[in-house]
Amino acid sequence: MPDVLALAGGVGGAKLAFGLASLLPPDRLTVVVNTGDDDAFHGLHVSPDIDTVVYTLAGKANRETGWGRQQDTFAALDALSELGAETWFRLGDRDLALHIRRTQLLREGHTLSEVTRDVCQRFGVEHAIVPMSDNAIRTVVETDQGVMSFQEYFVLHHSEPRVRRLVFKGIERATPSPWFEMAWQRADALVICPSNPFLSVDPILSIPGARNALASINGVRIAVSPIIGGKAVRGPAAKLFEQLGGGPADCVGVARRYAGLCTHLVIDRVDQALAPQIAALGIKPVVENTLMQTDDDRIELARAVLAVCETG
Amino acid sequence: MPDVLALAGGVGGAKLAFGLASLLPPDRLTVVVNTGDDDAFHGLHVSPDIDTVVYTLAGKANRETGWGRQQDTFAALDALSELGAETWFRLGDRDLALHIRRTQLLREGHTLSEVTRDVCQRFGVEHAIVPMSDNAIRTVVETDQGVMSFQEYFVLHHSEPRVRRLVFKGIERATPSPWFEMAWQRADALVICPSNPFLSVDPILSIPGARNALASINGVRIAVSPIIGGKAVRGPAAKLFEQLGGGPADCVGVARRYAGLCTHLVIDRVDQALAPQIAALGIKPVVENTLMQTDDDRIELARAVLAVCETG
Repeated sequence: MPDVLALAGGVGGAKLAFGLASLLPPDRLTVVVNTGDDDAFHGLHVSPDIDTVVYTLAGKANRETGWGRQQDTFAALDALSELGAETWFRLGDRDLALHIRRTQLLREGHTLSEVTRDVCQRFGVEHAIVPMSDNAIRTVVETDQGVMSFQEYFVLHHSEPRVRRLVFKGIERATPSPWFEMAWQRADALVICPSNPFLSVDPILSIPGARNALASINGVRIAVSPIIGGKAVRGPAAKLFEQLGGGPADCVGVARRYAGLCTHLVIDRVDQALAPQIAALGIKPVVENTLMQTDDDRIELARAVLAVCETG
Repeated sequence: MPDVLALAGGVGGAKLAFGLASLLPPDRLTVVVNTGDDDAFHGLHVSPDIDTVVYTLAGKANRETGWGRQQDTFAALDALSELGAETWFRLGDRDLALHIRRTQLLREGHTLSEVTRDVCQRFGVEHAIVPMSDNAIRTVVETDQGVMSFQEYFVLHHSEPRVRRLVFKGIERATPSPWFEMAWQRADALVICPSNPFLSVDPILSIPGARNALASINGVRIAVSPIIGGKAVRGPAAKLFEQLGGGPADCVGVARRYAGLCTHLVIDRVDQALAPQIAALGIKPVVENTLMQTDDDRIELARAVLAVCETG
């Protein structure tokens, strides 16, 4: 059984992480999560990608929205609005409690890694979910409508502005979180979940030393394409291929981004015809059903990924 | 029409403040509120007495509990408990929003006075509700069961420990809030609402310079007894008379505490027989119905108080 280091952003990453966690024991999986999307709302530290992964593995995620907790209410947010606060970033009451708790623990001197581990334990999540770094890294989006935070781009402006450049503010001075570093030293398989290559995976790979360390993992290094039939399942990944270069939005573009890092790329059956182009980049294409609509889909895809990890 | 400076703690003070605000225009009333009960929960700044007064004047107070907002929910608190936080101090979702907002604004450098004014404006409260000080003052309760914060004493331990001493931590270096100081310079009547003399009014009077300045208000200085027939309407006021000295818990004890400061004391009809003892202390007794169960009760008592302020 491989010792897996998985990289994840939000919804897509959380789905495959759920599948992996369903098949691997806790000591065989570390899910490293993007924190470039972290932001402060109402003075509270919000880690959207971490929370999506934690809620998903805890069985608390809201499947309809893709963010927040299931069956949450919005009384506090309504009252915040009444008090003059901006409330375009929707935070449910139960979700808000997590941000309140995290902010308090961070202010008391705990690291984001420690806080995340505590939250996982409270929620009964046994697998390690770790932030990519305990340092503050913020994805800044330079667009034709001005410079904005990731959440302003994604939530407030619905990913509509044309992106010119992404900057991961603070990344030069950032170090990987302790458990991320331990995992890359120990892992014998790397799994890049079907998350946005530009916004979710690139921040993780951009932490000084991370990409090289991951490329040195002695075993299968496999990514799952978040692009199916030229489209992203969710979010702006497809349009970012067009806006930031790297060719058209297809799994070949994904392969190009992970060339030199990954040994394998899982692509969807609808993209089977593109397999030779991926092979030509030195990456072995693996053809599977990659659309994860049910828990069974998640587990089946994870099973296929782990089979490659074991057999190469 | 007098220019009234009113001192208030929580529930009882808020009721009379409501009556006064119903009768006086906004430029004729300043309600100065105790902040010794303020505390931090989950890293959020909570000002229970200010909030009780604000909610009461805004028509949002929960009349059943005496704290918090009407028809509030507790989803966030449940989730905080799930996350391992102590939740004996009950904070509703809508109430929590106020603490989140206040904490954010305080951290951004605004004073508690400014934050409170902003909250009042948002809630449509036109009368000035001001904290006694913008400095941190904390009521510490020394008891036979140890030293504890006011909220630990009052909420967690239900006022059961025997109180040996009250300390208003930080009071020596505290200054009155700007609007408190302006009000005492301008007012021609002082009204001490029926709040706990030890826990609610004494902190305000203990701010350096405050008691002398209030005693110098050139006009009627009238208190309303929070003790009716030897009992407090709510809270531990009666037992504090026994534990901290000052004689038995009755309106004569209240008069004794305000001797040298107040010219008048409103006592309840049930205490009419004690009027001569109050007069003997140099304070004019005023006999009224002081139990405020309805809005009309509040307004009628305020009307009686204001009549004394005008006629002396």
